[in-house]
Amino acid sequence: MRSFEFYTPTRVIFGRGAEEQAGAQAKALGCSRVLVLYGGHSAVKSGLLDRVVSGLERDGLACHALGGVQPNPRLSLVYEAIRQAIEFQADLILAIGGGSVIDTAKAVSIGAANPDLDVWKDVWLKKFVPEKILPVGVILTISAAGSETSDSAVLTNDETHEKRGLNTDRQRPKFALMNPELTFTLPRFQVTCGVVDIMMHTLDRYFNPPKDDGVANNVTDELAEGLLRTVIANGRVAARDSHDYQAMSELMWAGSLSHNNLTGLGGVKDFSVHQLGHELSAMFDVAHGASLSAVWDSWATCCLDTDPARFARLGEKVWGLNPEGKSERELGLEAIAATREYFRSLDMPVTLPELGIGVLTEEQLEELAWRCTFYGKRKVGAFRVLDRDDLLAIYRMANHT
Amino acid sequence: MRSFEFYTPTRVIFGRGAEEQAGAQAKALGCSRVLVLYGGHSAVKSGLLDRVVSGLERDGLACHALGGVQPNPRLSLVYEAIRQAIEFQADLILAIGGGSVIDTAKAVSIGAANPDLDVWKDVWLKKFVPEKILPVGVILTISAAGSETSDSAVLTNDETHEKRGLNTDRQRPKFALMNPELTFTLPRFQVTCGVVDIMMHTLDRYFNPPKDDGVANNVTDELAEGLLRTVIANGRVAARDSHDYQAMSELMWAGSLSHNNLTGLGGVKDFSVHQLGHELSAMFDVAHGASLSAVWDSWATCCLDTDPARFARLGEKVWGLNPEGKSERELGLEAIAATREYFRSLDMPVTLPELGIGVLTEEQLEELAWRCTFYGKRKVGAFRVLDRDDLLAIYRMANHT
Repeated sequence: MRSFEFYTPTRVIFGRGAEEQAGAQAKALGCSRVLVLYGGHSAVKSGLLDRVVSGLERDGLACHALGGVQPNPRLSLVYEAIRQAIEFQADLILAIGGGSVIDTAKAVSIGAANPDLDVWKDVWLKKFVPEKILPVGVILTISAAGSETSDSAVLTNDETHEKRGLNTDRQRPKFALMNPELTFTLPRFQVTCGVVDIMMHTLDRYFNPPKDDGVANNVTDELAEGLLRTVIANGRVAARDSHDYQAMSELMWAGSLSHNNLTGLGGVKDFSVHQLGHELSAMFDVAHGASLSAVWDSWATCCLDTDPARFARLGEKVWGLNPEGKSERELGLEAIAATREYFRSLDMPVTLPELGIGVLTEEQLEELAWRCTFYGKRKVGAFRVLDRDDLLAIYRMANHT
Repeated sequence: MRSFEFYTPTRVIFGRGAEEQAGAQAKALGCSRVLVLYGGHSAVKSGLLDRVVSGLERDGLACHALGGVQPNPRLSLVYEAIRQAIEFQADLILAIGGGSVIDTAKAVSIGAANPDLDVWKDVWLKKFVPEKILPVGVILTISAAGSETSDSAVLTNDETHEKRGLNTDRQRPKFALMNPELTFTLPRFQVTCGVVDIMMHTLDRYFNPPKDDGVANNVTDELAEGLLRTVIANGRVAARDSHDYQAMSELMWAGSLSHNNLTGLGGVKDFSVHQLGHELSAMFDVAHGASLSAVWDSWATCCLDTDPARFARLGEKVWGLNPEGKSERELGLEAIAATREYFRSLDMPVTLPELGIGVLTEEQLEELAWRCTFYGKRKVGAFRVLDRDDLLAIYRMANHT
């Protein structure tokens, strides 16, 4: 294994009724004024928001709730939430939702504790993380982003259409209350987007730079492959029946493990597919999970020859393909096909047009690739380092009907 | 999955030279006076103790070192270390060693912060955990106990020959510095004892009560099985060459993961084999890892019919046995044999006499079983709940030459 650091201080409380622990957890942190962030109507309609807020108030905590967080969470709402958090003198930011709400809460926790900093220009773009941050708590309602235990948050600047992530251990939530039943009422598309996102958090770590130094990563590879098999099997069940507690609970826990870094320790993160997807979400506001499945197939096909053995291993260990009589490249191609067909079986897009954004023009593809290099400032990935031409080739390959 | 809580706040720094971070980590915790605990001569002879202490002093920290922690760590030394920690006004307990030193550090961290409590009578026996505890840091030199990230510590009362554990999240170390090279000079027997201990932390969680409620535990089972395969393969290499960085690093990280609870989440801990082994260590002062392999075979044989399917799964997933044409019971028996033969291949005992304690008398066996019930106060385990007669039967079965 290569050297690594690992720090996951989030207290996870998992199971039916977990959300009822919010007040106790807030008080254990010494907090008394809670800004409750949530997304759309479902938290209101289901009664969850009311239940949580009255529970907190019964526990003696003051609450102020703010909704309206959208997928690909907007910087404009972050600014507004920071303003309200400061005005309310919040000492805890509680996210009720999935990745978008949690990522918003993370940004608010930084912004509200540092009113002199602009959370976008001073923090997100400069990767500057101040020491003082408000604690974040989570009541999870979507299994996907893994943000409930991760060090990561991704925001979209709705003026510039830029989507940017920040990684810092300081913003890992203090507690995550995870009740699989809260995910039962999700629309099928959100469940399947989540399945793709969880798989991709693992795959974007699995594709390490080829091991010419002879460094292997046995235990991490085993954990990643086991997690992928679990998500694939339970994803099939969840896509049919989002009220299956067994399947939804496996997905929920796998979602956390796939993005708290466990599945990549001792390796080198790639994350090309996430970067390719982020630009699609930023330009066309497509769902995050869908943006990933829409480019994975092309990314994989373009990168197969970087290390055919790695794709072959994916085929054998995760998809259960029979390696007999096949070259590594042949088995790798079968692994790519198996992944593509799995996404299709979930009705997830595997091309750009399937995202519902039409066939893109050459100008649009070039704009995507240019943006993905942060306007010429970076290359992308580690498994194979991708320059602008490579990124363009991948977007082009994904642009077929 | 069943409900669970998971809290692993230990900051892990893993890789060559990790021990050099001790000063920085201590200062990040706001500590300035370090009680350094270690075991025998190896930490002195290798120069590690000197290097660590001078590094800490260079970083401006005051140090007081205390050695002599023995395997199956003694309560008497814990009392002495608590006295010295209080006298030195230590605000951090730094363990340099493996499970025995870390467990001692955990007990000292409780005792030194609570001079009015007797750490054995008031804390260990009553399972009372005070709020105030000194922070514990670890420089790991033995891959085995997993105590560097676990919530557990086991002490032996050298007056009464009782061995008792305490589990509490409060005593999880604040940081663990894990450099696989520090394990290179271990005697082969300590390496192989570690391999058994790591496997058993996972197996003692893997054997869950039979699932008549239909609750499965997919992701946790996958993680456990992947971890076991890794440990088995790398254990073989490590037993041949303890200077193989690749193998020693896999064992080191697997050791932490096998006992931080990850491999049991959503399940019910059994831990019968640990309890059976603890009494052997308490009465005969045999090495912990050896005490486990010496009874596992008999425990498994006695418990096979509780859930043959579980043993069969172990055989297929972990040992790679071919299930074709076999009943679950037959495959389960093969899994038990494969485990036994693996322990034998590491020259680890699989019977009581192989521990070097001779063939025990019926009185001794009865004494062991009686002690294992805490003198009639408890039954043991969850996979199959074992009463005194069951425990006696297992010890008897293990008593053959």
